[in-house]
Amino acid sequence: MTPLPAGRFAVGHHHRIGDGWLTGTTVVLCPPGTVGGADQRGGAPGTRETDLLDPRNLVDSVDAVVLSGGSAYGLEAATGVVHWLAERGRGWPVTRDDPSLVVPIVPGAVIFDLDRGRWGHRPDAEFGRLACEAAREVGQDTPPARGTVGAGTGASVGGLKGGVGWATGRVADVEVAALAVVNGVGSAVDPLTGGLYADLDHRYRTPARDELSRLPKRPHRPLNTTIGVVLTDARLTKAQCQKVAGIAQDGLARGVRPAHTMFDGDTVFTLASGHVEVGEVWAFDRLLEAAADMFAFAVRDAVVSASSAGGLQCYRDLFPSAGIAGPSS
Amino acid sequence: MTPLPAGRFAVGHHHRIGDGWLTGTTVVLCPPGTVGGADQRGGAPGTRETDLLDPRNLVDSVDAVVLSGGSAYGLEAATGVVHWLAERGRGWPVTRDDPSLVVPIVPGAVIFDLDRGRWGHRPDAEFGRLACEAAREVGQDTPPARGTVGAGTGASVGGLKGGVGWATGRVADVEVAALAVVNGVGSAVDPLTGGLYADLDHRYRTPARDELSRLPKRPHRPLNTTIGVVLTDARLTKAQCQKVAGIAQDGLARGVRPAHTMFDGDTVFTLASGHVEVGEVWAFDRLLEAAADMFAFAVRDAVVSASSAGGLQCYRDLFPSAGIAGPSS
Repeated sequence: MTPLPAGRFAVGHHHRIGDGWLTGTTVVLCPPGTVGGADQRGGAPGTRETDLLDPRNLVDSVDAVVLSGGSAYGLEAATGVVHWLAERGRGWPVTRDDPSLVVPIVPGAVIFDLDRGRWGHRPDAEFGRLACEAAREVGQDTPPARGTVGAGTGASVGGLKGGVGWATGRVADVEVAALAVVNGVGSAVDPLTGGLYADLDHRYRTPARDELSRLPKRPHRPLNTTIGVVLTDARLTKAQCQKVAGIAQDGLARGVRPAHTMFDGDTVFTLASGHVEVGEVWAFDRLLEAAADMFAFAVRDAVVSASSAGGLQCYRDLFPSAGIAGPSS
Repeated sequence: MTPLPAGRFAVGHHHRIGDGWLTGTTVVLCPPGTVGGADQRGGAPGTRETDLLDPRNLVDSVDAVVLSGGSAYGLEAATGVVHWLAERGRGWPVTRDDPSLVVPIVPGAVIFDLDRGRWGHRPDAEFGRLACEAAREVGQDTPPARGTVGAGTGASVGGLKGGVGWATGRVADVEVAALAVVNGVGSAVDPLTGGLYADLDHRYRTPARDELSRLPKRPHRPLNTTIGVVLTDARLTKAQCQKVAGIAQDGLARGVRPAHTMFDGDTVFTLASGHVEVGEVWAFDRLLEAAADMFAFAVRDAVVSASSAGGLQCYRDLFPSAGIAGPSS
């Protein structure tokens, strides 16, 4: 039986590819006492438990975040996560007398990928449960599986294959990581050079004309959505988590252009495990800056880690001149 | 006597430079029936009448937006704008019987520039009044004065001189313009090349090492704030105006890094004069994309239009190799 995370976050994926399937679910399991926040900015969101994260509201801890394909249907994956947690006694205690009576707190968001597989083939509660079973602790040296996996299985961005991306950094004693499921209406690729917007040197690339000419045009009526999670071991309030999620959207704005359109449900969560004191506001501000950077890098990582699937070409295949290798894991 | 704008927006500046002064005020006067919205995202805002712009609230038109130096003291500039408008009978009618009984609706935001001149030298109501007197209609071929003017007089960005910037574009039949008062904690300059983040080709520049070495380091305890307005002749609802302002913040995120810090009060307004029907949501979505782009270009324009003042070096002086001429007006 997969253990609950004790000190670190754990990430698990479950997906199905083939036989009309191209979708999946990703779960982030939290160590006890994790505080959460969210920032919802795209025009077409599919979310659950984001109101609970409002700093004015009661519940002060989060047990997991679920990210899924399947559009609003895919919210069902959270059911499997909730029951998996409840079976392990993890959740918010709702009585004074019996600590075993818990309600698992599982915020989540979904991406639109319904047109990538056969209609009706979308994540259900079992996807959420199996993603929990597959979860492994993550950190600076132990990234989760990335690319065409989990909630990113059916993802596309600007008509190229999207996927799951990951980035980690450190600000003084605080770790900041970002996991992004990149599925944007906008593009991650600079159409002038073929470089990636999120890359610090995307403008240095020499354009490969034949590659650029194959870059997909924007579809007429796209529906997409980029979602993700910022993970940190900092001790933050709910309001600070909300602020971190908000500034991570700046990283998305840098990595995908345009972002936050009427047809994206772009939503970012923050999870703070509370192991490291941040100190004064100046230190928190540096953490904010890192969150934006890490989210941009996670967007980049998603695009370069993705592999072609379901008729969607991946960046590595379209731009071989970029010389980007696939993810090692 | 300066007329009220009939069909187009009008922009006016008033500022004082020298004798311990380095601050000013900018006003945008609206044609009748203009609808407004706002998006506030920085951690240290100074604003007025932003709650009124909430789509749930009653008032459905805006008479002017005031942008000012002077931090929270500078909100006083709005007093001059309110009285100037009231004297001309412009405002929201508050009785059924007498249309001359009006309350002018003047949302506004301020930047922190108190450390750029002598303490106590900050905009007051007279600055707002004089900015109204100076207002001239603006459009694609008639930009307002830019650079070290109005609310941008004392502005700095990443330790360089900031200022007022302007950009205009068109989406089908709709005009979209942005006016930005750029005063960010973060920098507008790519430290690797000296190019401007908001420039589409900022990475093509060959770094001039001696120029780069003079780029200011970030101050320890900065207080700043970028504010601005998106202007359009589209017919939009209050909620749509709010969405436009939100996505314009993506343009800020691209042009200034980091943006929206705890020490920036970054706030963007939208003003929609309502002359052109936008049509379906796809057209509105293209307008959103243009708003983000225009705001990024206005940020760029502010930085290249600024002239050195108050010990703050401007971009053109620090990077002569960029070969950027000053604003013609």
